[in-house]
Amino acid sequence: MQSIMTMGEILVEIMAGRKGQSFRAPGPLAGPYASGAPAIFIDQVARLGHPAAIIGCVGDDDFGWLNIDRLRRDGVDTSAIAVCQNAVTGSAFVTYRDSGERDFIFNITNSASAQLQPEQVNQAVLKDCAHFHVMGSSLFSFRIIDAMKKAIEIVKAQGGTVSFDPNVRKEMLRIPEMREALAYILEFTDIFLPSGHEVTQLARSADEAGAIAEIFARGVREIVVKRGADGCSYFSADERIDLDALPVDVADPTGAGDCFGATFIACRRLGKTALQSLRYANAAGALAVSSKGPMEGTSGFAGLDALLAQQPQHLRHAVMEG
Amino acid sequence: MQSIMTMGEILVEIMAGRKGQSFRAPGPLAGPYASGAPAIFIDQVARLGHPAAIIGCVGDDDFGWLNIDRLRRDGVDTSAIAVCQNAVTGSAFVTYRDSGERDFIFNITNSASAQLQPEQVNQAVLKDCAHFHVMGSSLFSFRIIDAMKKAIEIVKAQGGTVSFDPNVRKEMLRIPEMREALAYILEFTDIFLPSGHEVTQLARSADEAGAIAEIFARGVREIVVKRGADGCSYFSADERIDLDALPVDVADPTGAGDCFGATFIACRRLGKTALQSLRYANAAGALAVSSKGPMEGTSGFAGLDALLAQQPQHLRHAVMEG
Repeated sequence: MQSIMTMGEILVEIMAGRKGQSFRAPGPLAGPYASGAPAIFIDQVARLGHPAAIIGCVGDDDFGWLNIDRLRRDGVDTSAIAVCQNAVTGSAFVTYRDSGERDFIFNITNSASAQLQPEQVNQAVLKDCAHFHVMGSSLFSFRIIDAMKKAIEIVKAQGGTVSFDPNVRKEMLRIPEMREALAYILEFTDIFLPSGHEVTQLARSADEAGAIAEIFARGVREIVVKRGADGCSYFSADERIDLDALPVDVADPTGAGDCFGATFIACRRLGKTALQSLRYANAAGALAVSSKGPMEGTSGFAGLDALLAQQPQHLRHAVMEG
Repeated sequence: MQSIMTMGEILVEIMAGRKGQSFRAPGPLAGPYASGAPAIFIDQVARLGHPAAIIGCVGDDDFGWLNIDRLRRDGVDTSAIAVCQNAVTGSAFVTYRDSGERDFIFNITNSASAQLQPEQVNQAVLKDCAHFHVMGSSLFSFRIIDAMKKAIEIVKAQGGTVSFDPNVRKEMLRIPEMREALAYILEFTDIFLPSGHEVTQLARSADEAGAIAEIFARGVREIVVKRGADGCSYFSADERIDLDALPVDVADPTGAGDCFGATFIACRRLGKTALQSLRYANAAGALAVSSKGPMEGTSGFAGLDALLAQQPQHLRHAVMEG
């Protein structure tokens, strides 16, 4: 029992060739690129040499096999990826506005990713799972939420830990059952990995400090807040660490948060300290944004060490409390 | 009551940039291009100055609006295109093998195109329809087949005519209900527009001459067989015309058959003879294959006349019988 596992959408991404390019007219595109937040996460875990596996569903088409081939090549156990005959692998079209914001067209809820069955989740599949990661983006159907709850229960029952990245669209939070599901998952979460604006989403408190106190009170043990260009913060009961983002040229932010989270989780599992883990996660996020393509910026320790060696310590402050 | 109408899938196409390019690895792509066989057909009708309208369904996304904008600009009445809030506009990914064969990945049956409702088909919508065209590719669900039957019945009851292009995948023909639906449509068909290999698909006879006799016996009045690079043939009770294909550089065959059929139907409706109509259809097919992008090769009479003026009469023989 030593593997990190996750579950959810496995997609291809098609990228517009130019900034400001509209999908209302033909233009140069590039792809298909391996994608899907849980797939990017687990690829990054495997790149760090940690045992890694994903539960998911793709179509029996080139887009599905592209992902399976890629994940396998990077060391991910793909045996729990079902290849559906009656559905097409999901796809996401992304274009960047001049402002840097992204516009998407998604084929996800109508894709093989939505065919994920609670039957795919059982003790046999999860027997090696020491840590299970939940991506909020994956929770787009009640059947998948049920599958996710089942996975969490099995992993917790066998003594494993859980992390949760609540990258949920705002509209989803308006659905009461979705808020309940997120609250349920948070109850079982050991490591919580929100982006800056997400810290208060699942809390009553409107400010970050209050929300963090609430989340600790629910049993979460570590919180890592991803702030993009503004760096990141680590919180535990007795420690706070803030790091600046590493100065890199941003080619494509898609997948950076997933690589960051995967690196933090894998490093903690590999016995590194919170500070070491956060520095590696910060570097993984920086390398991810430097590469075009959502899964093209995953990196091994050699690449992370090389980047960190070039940089001064971007530690703003580390406070030991208590 | 003077319009040509059709009904069915409205899509975007994403094209691989290079011949032999695989969708199992990232590469250069181009798109989104307006597409969908019925959409290409009706765009070509409108380009010839004939009143034209399409019944269909797109998502409220750039891919849908790209198609609506394009069809409107070319003169198609798009008022019967429903814009669905809960589905994504369909998409097709196409790549060419070195042999010239195409490989596709389709998001159609899981797209807004599958949301087409029999309720969209009624006398009010079809009140101006003098001719209704059925694309076999559109018949991918029993609900859509029901809608198609309803449209045919309304148009026939108001004295209109029907044409049918049976571009159905072979696997579909193995479904008994699908064969029944195609036979039903053929009973109401005035002008039948098969590709060469499709002539015998809906007949008992294994050879073309026998199949054509059978189809005439069912009440079809004109048959036009599209033979790609081998030209085309026209059959009526007392006439046969064979034309060679016009010699052009093939950039992209997608949509050529749709442009060919649309031009033949529009020309017949505009009072041109079978020979004139076939020559224009032949030219429309040639211009369509010369342009990259499925709907990028639609053409007006000026373009068709210019092409025909450059060419000798590629009439192999015209036989007047009886």
